[in-house]
Amino acid sequence: MISAKSYAAQSPETDLAPWDFERREVGPHDVQFDILYCGVCHSDLHQIKNDWFPGIFPMVPGHEIVGRVVKVGDHVKNFKVGDLAGTGCMVDSCQVCENCKQDLEQYCLEGNTQTYNSMERDGSRPTYGGYSNTIVVREEFVLHISEDVDLAATAPLLCAGITTYSPLRHWGVGKGHKLAVLGLGGLGHMGVKFGVAFGAEVTVLSTSANKEEDAKKLGAHHFVVTKDAEQMKAAAGTFDFILDTVSAEHDMDAYLKLLRTNGVMMCVGVPSKPYSIQPFSLLGGRKSVAGSGIGGIKETQEMLDFCAANNIVSDIEMIDIKDITAAYERMVKGDVRYRFVIDMATL
Amino acid sequence: MISAKSYAAQSPETDLAPWDFERREVGPHDVQFDILYCGVCHSDLHQIKNDWFPGIFPMVPGHEIVGRVVKVGDHVKNFKVGDLAGTGCMVDSCQVCENCKQDLEQYCLEGNTQTYNSMERDGSRPTYGGYSNTIVVREEFVLHISEDVDLAATAPLLCAGITTYSPLRHWGVGKGHKLAVLGLGGLGHMGVKFGVAFGAEVTVLSTSANKEEDAKKLGAHHFVVTKDAEQMKAAAGTFDFILDTVSAEHDMDAYLKLLRTNGVMMCVGVPSKPYSIQPFSLLGGRKSVAGSGIGGIKETQEMLDFCAANNIVSDIEMIDIKDITAAYERMVKGDVRYRFVIDMATL
Repeated sequence: MISAKSYAAQSPETDLAPWDFERREVGPHDVQFDILYCGVCHSDLHQIKNDWFPGIFPMVPGHEIVGRVVKVGDHVKNFKVGDLAGTGCMVDSCQVCENCKQDLEQYCLEGNTQTYNSMERDGSRPTYGGYSNTIVVREEFVLHISEDVDLAATAPLLCAGITTYSPLRHWGVGKGHKLAVLGLGGLGHMGVKFGVAFGAEVTVLSTSANKEEDAKKLGAHHFVVTKDAEQMKAAAGTFDFILDTVSAEHDMDAYLKLLRTNGVMMCVGVPSKPYSIQPFSLLGGRKSVAGSGIGGIKETQEMLDFCAANNIVSDIEMIDIKDITAAYERMVKGDVRYRFVIDMATL
Repeated sequence: MISAKSYAAQSPETDLAPWDFERREVGPHDVQFDILYCGVCHSDLHQIKNDWFPGIFPMVPGHEIVGRVVKVGDHVKNFKVGDLAGTGCMVDSCQVCENCKQDLEQYCLEGNTQTYNSMERDGSRPTYGGYSNTIVVREEFVLHISEDVDLAATAPLLCAGITTYSPLRHWGVGKGHKLAVLGLGGLGHMGVKFGVAFGAEVTVLSTSANKEEDAKKLGAHHFVVTKDAEQMKAAAGTFDFILDTVSAEHDMDAYLKLLRTNGVMMCVGVPSKPYSIQPFSLLGGRKSVAGSGIGGIKETQEMLDFCAANNIVSDIEMIDIKDITAAYERMVKGDVRYRFVIDMATL
């Protein structure tokens, strides 16, 4: 076994604190990499607080992981010691179902294995995430990272990046489309960057008027303060797509009004309560509300390569791991522009 | 003005009863036709009871209207006295917005003019529907009906028919697809017929086990009793599309489980309460919930022609208009196979 250090939650009631544990030995198809940076995702907090479902404790969160390979199994072909490597929300899947065979491991029909708060495929032990010094992942779920990128600012691409890239690609958002990005946080700011990169006319919808300058800096063409009834009225029926990144409860009917006929609301935030949607909000314009979960491994690599080629990274604020609880508090208040990333050297 | 007879609701608290009123004179672009049959739609009852929004009273319901032309305006080109004619849920729209220009008058950006419980375009008077002896409609909103069809059984195609035909066409449902039709009522039984005609493998989802024989007679290939947990479990993840025709509250999450990855739930029923949908029900498989409202005039004509060519009509039970209140009571209980049609000769 491999000794590992981490910050872990011992229960939903306790703050994260140092915890030593063991990772599995590097198997023939595994890659071990030492973690250099790990992004802080809102879902880390949702999960250690049992917001969605009862978690597995102790829990080591973190699924925006980048680092450098220190060991590879005998059968590993695509990684060697010294390579940069990344891992996102998944570390395994059945690999044989029709979804896995179509590079949609995120929708594995047997359920994918999440990077943390999940059981390893053989049921032997829980998975532990990236708030840690090292990780062992089977080769197929390790991503290549270019040596030319800002490594810390690339970490959030593994979740916030692919989660927004994938639906925009799937629904073919691009030139000639009006895209609204609802919520300017970790996901939203990546949605803006991708929307702009794909050629769409991008509007940020935000409750916070003071984010307008930032939105424009990120490349957004327009900004709508959603608390302003006049601005909302003016925006009614104008968007082909809304990328909904909000993970708090929000008024779906109010936003559906902003879509054009045949418009699609792509939901990637995960509120802990059900969406409430009036039937007429959908049928009065043949509108859709759709969900999208992260992306497959092939598409995640495509996204990383696209970002490297187009100088796209996340806007980050680096923190020491000892400050994680304070960072969570700020994240909940929306007080981060736009993603905390933990410098794992501080562990 | 033209004197007309009808059955009308004087308020949401009163039963339908005879009422004489006036229709507008036949204008240069209008067609007047005497009504032979009118289908009874669940939305007739929703509207006279103010279930959706406060209605305009007295209200003459009915938007599945067929009859024979008795007068045409000077500029009418496509109808002559003696022709069969039909009108569905709309009698007017702005005709100039981008949706109207794309034959999507149902999504007219200024709002279409409903056949009843709406104001005429010039704001002069309410529209009155098909529980009446005669009607005046502008030419563009009058449909041609073949002389070769069962006229009474064709009436419900004007709403129940187009409402199910349109989403199946829009989402390209056909050969190679597994389609579930949720709810076997006026809409559902048409959804089954169209799904089968388009080549899909059709399953009826119903709470009523005793509808299985009927479902099969209508052409459905499979039947799932939705109250049976084992049957629901077996059907999980199997459908490409669900056509949701239910207008009562129902458990959306339970049905979304039945969709495959990328599956679409097409909603055409209109419950009076909002849908409640768990975010994970959508994102765990990139699923969509979409609405669809009736269909445009061009598509409605296409549907009528398709039905005439393929011997598709509604399964109906003919009633005298004096029995309309009893018919509503039976309709609410699902005790009609599958659409009441009023013989307007009984007015």
